[in-house]
Amino acid sequence: MPLLRSYLAGRWHSAPDEGQPLYDAATGEEVARISATGADRAAALAYGRDVGGPALRELTFHQRAQLLKVLASHLMEQREELYALSHRTGATLADSKIDIDGGIGTLFGYSSKARKELPNDTVYVEGAVEPLGRQGTFVGQHIAVPLHGVAVQINAFNFPMWGPLEKFAPAFIAGVPSLIKPASQTAYLTERMVELIVDSKILPEGSIQLLTGSAGDLLDHLTAQDLVSFTGSASTAQKLRAHPVVIRNSVRFNAEADSLNCSILGPDAKPGTTEFDLFVKQLAYEMTAKAGQKCTAIRRAIVPARLLDDVAEATRERLGKVVVGNPANPDVRMGALASLEQREEVRRSLKALQDAGSAVFGDPLHVDVVDADAERGAFLSPVLLRVDDVDRAEPHEVEAFGPVSTLLPYDSTEQAVSLAARGLGSLVGSIVSADTGFVREVVLGAAPWHGRLLVLDATDAKESTGHGSPLPMLIHGGPGRAGGGEEMGGVRGILHHLQRTAVQASPTVLGAVTNRYVAGGERRSDGTHPFRKSLAELKVGDYVTAGPRVVTKEDIDHFSDFAGDKFYAHTDEEAAKANPIFGGIVAHGYLVISLAAGLFVEPSPGPVLANYGLENLRFLTPVYPDDALTVTLTAKQISPRVDTDYGVVTWDAEVTNQNGESVAKYDVLTLVAKESA
Amino acid sequence: MPLLRSYLAGRWHSAPDEGQPLYDAATGEEVARISATGADRAAALAYGRDVGGPALRELTFHQRAQLLKVLASHLMEQREELYALSHRTGATLADSKIDIDGGIGTLFGYSSKARKELPNDTVYVEGAVEPLGRQGTFVGQHIAVPLHGVAVQINAFNFPMWGPLEKFAPAFIAGVPSLIKPASQTAYLTERMVELIVDSKILPEGSIQLLTGSAGDLLDHLTAQDLVSFTGSASTAQKLRAHPVVIRNSVRFNAEADSLNCSILGPDAKPGTTEFDLFVKQLAYEMTAKAGQKCTAIRRAIVPARLLDDVAEATRERLGKVVVGNPANPDVRMGALASLEQREEVRRSLKALQDAGSAVFGDPLHVDVVDADAERGAFLSPVLLRVDDVDRAEPHEVEAFGPVSTLLPYDSTEQAVSLAARGLGSLVGSIVSADTGFVREVVLGAAPWHGRLLVLDATDAKESTGHGSPLPMLIHGGPGRAGGGEEMGGVRGILHHLQRTAVQASPTVLGAVTNRYVAGGERRSDGTHPFRKSLAELKVGDYVTAGPRVVTKEDIDHFSDFAGDKFYAHTDEEAAKANPIFGGIVAHGYLVISLAAGLFVEPSPGPVLANYGLENLRFLTPVYPDDALTVTLTAKQISPRVDTDYGVVTWDAEVTNQNGESVAKYDVLTLVAKESA
Repeated sequence: MPLLRSYLAGRWHSAPDEGQPLYDAATGEEVARISATGADRAAALAYGRDVGGPALRELTFHQRAQLLKVLASHLMEQREELYALSHRTGATLADSKIDIDGGIGTLFGYSSKARKELPNDTVYVEGAVEPLGRQGTFVGQHIAVPLHGVAVQINAFNFPMWGPLEKFAPAFIAGVPSLIKPASQTAYLTERMVELIVDSKILPEGSIQLLTGSAGDLLDHLTAQDLVSFTGSASTAQKLRAHPVVIRNSVRFNAEADSLNCSILGPDAKPGTTEFDLFVKQLAYEMTAKAGQKCTAIRRAIVPARLLDDVAEATRERLGKVVVGNPANPDVRMGALASLEQREEVRRSLKALQDAGSAVFGDPLHVDVVDADAERGAFLSPVLLRVDDVDRAEPHEVEAFGPVSTLLPYDSTEQAVSLAARGLGSLVGSIVSADTGFVREVVLGAAPWHGRLLVLDATDAKESTGHGSPLPMLIHGGPGRAGGGEEMGGVRGILHHLQRTAVQASPTVLGAVTNRYVAGGERRSDGTHPFRKSLAELKVGDYVTAGPRVVTKEDIDHFSDFAGDKFYAHTDEEAAKANPIFGGIVAHGYLVISLAAGLFVEPSPGPVLANYGLENLRFLTPVYPDDALTVTLTAKQISPRVDTDYGVVTWDAEVTNQNGESVAKYDVLTLVAKESA
Repeated sequence: MPLLRSYLAGRWHSAPDEGQPLYDAATGEEVARISATGADRAAALAYGRDVGGPALRELTFHQRAQLLKVLASHLMEQREELYALSHRTGATLADSKIDIDGGIGTLFGYSSKARKELPNDTVYVEGAVEPLGRQGTFVGQHIAVPLHGVAVQINAFNFPMWGPLEKFAPAFIAGVPSLIKPASQTAYLTERMVELIVDSKILPEGSIQLLTGSAGDLLDHLTAQDLVSFTGSASTAQKLRAHPVVIRNSVRFNAEADSLNCSILGPDAKPGTTEFDLFVKQLAYEMTAKAGQKCTAIRRAIVPARLLDDVAEATRERLGKVVVGNPANPDVRMGALASLEQREEVRRSLKALQDAGSAVFGDPLHVDVVDADAERGAFLSPVLLRVDDVDRAEPHEVEAFGPVSTLLPYDSTEQAVSLAARGLGSLVGSIVSADTGFVREVVLGAAPWHGRLLVLDATDAKESTGHGSPLPMLIHGGPGRAGGGEEMGGVRGILHHLQRTAVQASPTVLGAVTNRYVAGGERRSDGTHPFRKSLAELKVGDYVTAGPRVVTKEDIDHFSDFAGDKFYAHTDEEAAKANPIFGGIVAHGYLVISLAAGLFVEPSPGPVLANYGLENLRFLTPVYPDDALTVTLTAKQISPRVDTDYGVVTWDAEVTNQNGESVAKYDVLTLVAKESA
């Protein structure tokens, strides 16, 4: 049997010993052996810091995003091989797609998010420029730059591909190298994935490392620049979080632990309603997908007391149709648990739950299987319980990490919320109801205990991605029992790998640090209109001032007629006088910015292709008849796109009147060619 | 001597014993006694959760902000009394202003930020609506709601007022009650402050509690909904962070520990330059303000090797003029350390530092004092050291928490950055230089190790708030040795007290949860134009559709002439054809939104007072001659202001063409009266 290797410090490492066996979840055959003997974890961390980090930090966010997209496409092509390996973990094809396609989808998702929401630069700028003095010579802004350490990613056995990739993607975009430590049981799939990644040579060397086998002394070597992201049991999370080096060096520690997630049925969702059917279907699906081995699965189904029997009956019926057996067999709906040990663990938890209630469906000790051996494979029947005494601790505290869920009755909205909270922190909850008032009360009431809440109803059911699916653009994680962490969530997950720093400086110096023009900072003009400059020629701070243009009463009247905007403040002197803000006829805001464009635009064809939007427009001082407008347009931010021959230029626009007062401020967004034609 | 009281569970608690004495830092006289004997900490936490939390959550962010402003004004009136008490901590009047005025300023700052950047609502909505399906029936967005616990705030002795207030302000705005535990040495000032707050009855009962004396079993009673914010020594931070209950319940733990902050002089800043003088002045100031007992003080002055003697000489000269003595005496520039124990502690640290280098100024064992007794008061001379061997560990590791700093030479920019990083995580660093290239390199290089970086030069010096001053709108905290935490930073510090939750739902349901119109959600029209409705009448989702208006070639020509915007894509058919985006003459974006306003505006006087801006404008499809435009305007968000008779209404605007394609989308910002006239 093959001995899994580790990829550390730029080379593949094989342990000198025979390692421990890993077994096929469905057949019990040995799949591989695992050992980390001889792995130099300290050297791997140092290598990540010294080789991977610097290589990644050379790239901009967009360049990293581009690589991630190429990598995702590459892995897409290898899916068949990965599916085959995935069956050995007990996963059906549908299960494997959650893991493998889900993981690849997360790479695509992060690649896309990064190109849309991050600058094509190595520094992230967060939030507005904060004025820190009255004269405008001293300002502040937050920047975020990559930590100079390694993202240590300790993963759970249930998602050998998605688990590592959902941690790797934001780290990579952030510019922080990853060291992946998979759970042993299913590490052979992760190892193959990392092999494919390393062999592809798509990523800079050092940006990904793999440690198969025991974490050993890994955490002993962490510095304050490293981070740990952990997914797994609450008890291991606690042990690692309290590790003396993690504590001493204030190492960023993110934990995502299994939780007792709930799904709540609304009182409106009686049998016969779409929502009733959606609830039952989702519950049965979440119990059986990945054989219930999802940290997001529904463990507590919270149902109006008077609907409990109906829900029990309908779910029992659905579960009765679930075919259990060989995960590679297309007729099989639910495969095996990851290992025989895992099955024993679930059976132990089930005993505790059974003490508190009664079985609705399933026998923990017996299941009929198709095309498999029920003894050698880690098969388990779906088990649905009901606990009518909701004050019992077990259903809220004991997690059976398998195809297991418990029905709990409630009598009032308040009680439904309080039962949800009894999980003491969950990754996700769902509310299935068409009653918006009920939904709002439950969502806002349960939110303090949840990282994600899904509302399912007839309207969104078709497009819903489901209770159990974390998405790259939304946070994944939850308070309390769920570990208190937060992963993904688009840019949030990237920021987790960056150090946020408040920079205080003059506008010119702040602009030099952030590569942006900061109002009040130095500008430059070489006589060429900045619209005549390609991205290659344009510099942040290039500007043009144009005007003045006098706005006459006739202009205002004419614009009212032409555009049809006859708001009284532009047309009725008497009424305008009574307006508390204007006190007389004023020019239309749209007229002001139209005239400003008339002043700053360079008409003939050139590198500027289009004005595609405006941001942050504020009208600051009313414009009265015969006011004279001047506009200054300054190149604020220049973002070439990595995949086309143009990019975005954001311009700072300021319109002033004859007294030098700001009349309007805004950002003009344009597309500009990289090179002049 | 008075025994300090605690304010717990709605009443003042006095310990039944005599307590421990607290001494005047300058005279050695007993000021007060302290004891927490009999304080029921579990009951206090429960009271905060059961009484304070619900009361705060009844209020909107703006209502809380308004109360904070009233409280700040109230405390302003009591400053004289507080200054007098502050002298007893060893603080001069200038020192006291940092603490007292700084604390009150933080309340004002948070009140203002909250009204500007948070909605007048109880739910915070973060980030954009994320489309989660192609049909638009399933969307996601992040909300944030207050945790249902207590913010336990454990403070350091050096800022008995600012320390508690900078933690309290964001917690209060967030809607989370505070339990303040001051350091014993100076707890009498904190106690008086809380007395003033409680007696004022400005805040809802339960929103602030005070525990004077030992923390005892306080942390044993924490739940996952509580938080801990700690400021103090790294060793205590580690102990608390590893507390079994904190670990077990994933309690949010924020630490701000003293760090070895640096100030770096640029190679350009030779003697005679403004920057040289600024550096020396700032160094001497940071050493002596609060007798150097600031977690943000400069501990390491990193100076070009060839300027080291000059800096040493100039700083020595400045320090020689510092008058030490009775902090209440207006001639005195530097008062006493907080206690004799503190002085012993600093002297111990000084011994270690002296081993590594040599003294430039000051004798740790002797100081001349004015109007005081150098033996009974905790007086200490400012001590400036120099360590020429920068590889020594001591200057980067040993913090003497008093008027102590060390000069360190560097030879290259790279070395300056690497010395800064040797602090292994700092709250703040400063760079004093007029060389923008040098500044950029140092800021970006040192940022991973810093929570804040100040660039000081001739331009911003007059308005600079200084190296040592955290500001409410910027983050305070730093990685690694600095504790790995983050406080303040405007809304960021508020969010720290909220649970972020991703909500997935149909647009209508998401809108009901967030109190906002979500594109694709249900709208309503009762026949009345929404511009005719006051805030009292308008509902989110009220809308008007207007049009079509055909845009003719003549309109485009006319607008080009009238506004003066003769960009070729609007005027030159041949050139427009060659444009890769348009492929022919198109209407001006400004024309499109002007015509749209002409369609949706209700001309006669009514509740809508003004359009004061636009946000997120995107031109999505070009408008060609003879296209027919229709606009739909929907009330998206309604935010009454707490202190005036109008508020802000944000409108979702969408312009479509005759094919139903989106031509432009944007948000229109208006001011609308609360009641119809």
